[in-house]
Amino acid sequence: MNIVIVGLGIIGGSLAKAFSKYTDHHVIGINRTQKTLETALRDGAIHEIGDQESLGKADVVYMCTYPEHIVSYVFENAAHFKKGCIVTDVCGIKTEICGRLTEICEKTGLQYVGSHPMAGKEKFSYEASDPELFKNASYIIVPCQAKEESVETIKSLAMELGFAMTRITTPSEHDRMIAFTSQIPHVLACAYVMSPCCTNHKGFSAGSYRDVSRVANINEVLWTDLFLSNREPLSEELSVLINNMTTIKNAIDANDSDTLQKLLKTSRLVKERLGE
Amino acid sequence: MNIVIVGLGIIGGSLAKAFSKYTDHHVIGINRTQKTLETALRDGAIHEIGDQESLGKADVVYMCTYPEHIVSYVFENAAHFKKGCIVTDVCGIKTEICGRLTEICEKTGLQYVGSHPMAGKEKFSYEASDPELFKNASYIIVPCQAKEESVETIKSLAMELGFAMTRITTPSEHDRMIAFTSQIPHVLACAYVMSPCCTNHKGFSAGSYRDVSRVANINEVLWTDLFLSNREPLSEELSVLINNMTTIKNAIDANDSDTLQKLLKTSRLVKERLGE
Repeated sequence: MNIVIVGLGIIGGSLAKAFSKYTDHHVIGINRTQKTLETALRDGAIHEIGDQESLGKADVVYMCTYPEHIVSYVFENAAHFKKGCIVTDVCGIKTEICGRLTEICEKTGLQYVGSHPMAGKEKFSYEASDPELFKNASYIIVPCQAKEESVETIKSLAMELGFAMTRITTPSEHDRMIAFTSQIPHVLACAYVMSPCCTNHKGFSAGSYRDVSRVANINEVLWTDLFLSNREPLSEELSVLINNMTTIKNAIDANDSDTLQKLLKTSRLVKERLGE
Repeated sequence: MNIVIVGLGIIGGSLAKAFSKYTDHHVIGINRTQKTLETALRDGAIHEIGDQESLGKADVVYMCTYPEHIVSYVFENAAHFKKGCIVTDVCGIKTEICGRLTEICEKTGLQYVGSHPMAGKEKFSYEASDPELFKNASYIIVPCQAKEESVETIKSLAMELGFAMTRITTPSEHDRMIAFTSQIPHVLACAYVMSPCCTNHKGFSAGSYRDVSRVANINEVLWTDLFLSNREPLSEELSVLINNMTTIKNAIDANDSDTLQKLLKTSRLVKERLGE
């Protein structure tokens, strides 16, 4: 297949490198900065430097730029894509982008399938990209209105790239689950280290402190954007968590051993049933 | 020195094994179950099976049983200890035990120094004990009214046993810090996995979920006791955390990018200043 990757940052660059290393597909790169394209070509990450015209031979286009740019790029270049071409994106929040790309692609005869490769680093440039980035990671697929065969193509490409598993979901389930699995731990870590005790922790702490506080070393500009772009699901999950913490706190304040033990047992059983 | 260890569970057994492996001190074990003493003797963890009379030759006694038992044992056997003998305990919460042992030891001419070796496992028996348990761990010392030389003795013994560092503190600072570093992460983990999202997390989660939820696999009987024995400091730290989470949530709900970014930056700076 001809694969076009638009945007050779950490994710686009890693996809290009993994495609070139692990598959026989022909990889074409499109990027704002010419220098990155030349580096990627020299690295063997891409086989060809592409432009608007390359979209006409693409079987699958991976859009790996920012959400706003993705929407305007697909909208403006829709006529250049081959009919029936699969367009996917790699944005970490899906409700808005899936809605807008589904609309554009339906009108222009393209197959839109949303994607979210669950991998990344705190660095974003091509220099940080790595063909092994996706090892052991999950590839989330949001089919939207695409044909089953397009979804299957995206799924088998993910397995070829080295992902450990794929997961099919809807935009709203995706965003609620990401609020829970990724955003809540970041909010928590930040709230936790705000305690006046934190600066005094050395000698009193071990693995538990380290695990909860790890991601407080946050890129505040990026995460402010991520949190605000998923406001409702994140706020709902925060309410759930604050309520659950308050329930436990109330049992502690009331010195209510029975209730506390029952609550903790509920949690242990959740973990046990998950085999964790 | 003659070292008596009362209670050969996970901590007492590990202390005995580390003393025998890494030091030349003479180790005497006292334990309710005779069979454990015989196993420990055969293992080389202790050099001698002791009884009440052995307390008379002890330079340091490590009390490694439950808090209630420790207090009654020292109270009932006070006359058997050598004058000036150092008595220490290894309980994880200090305010109450330190108050009671300081009182008993002052009246009977013993030197009480509180200890908290920051190491453990979810298993409690002698079988789980390990001479390497204390590698990289911190040994917290609560001097109370003991002489400086007794504190120094406990400190240098900790270093001989392989602890990475010691930390001197008061009972109340200790209990507040343990609420923060150890108990809060356990409350958090339990509250977190109570979300209806949790059972559905596979394919949506990576390191952040794993880190926060890890300790939800909790021994609910043990932790109910630990939480209730440190009720006030834990409740205060829970209030601090819930307030900080609510502050972040309010900024998210208000779509207030500036405030949110400032809050997250505060957290990043705490971590950076700690060099983490």
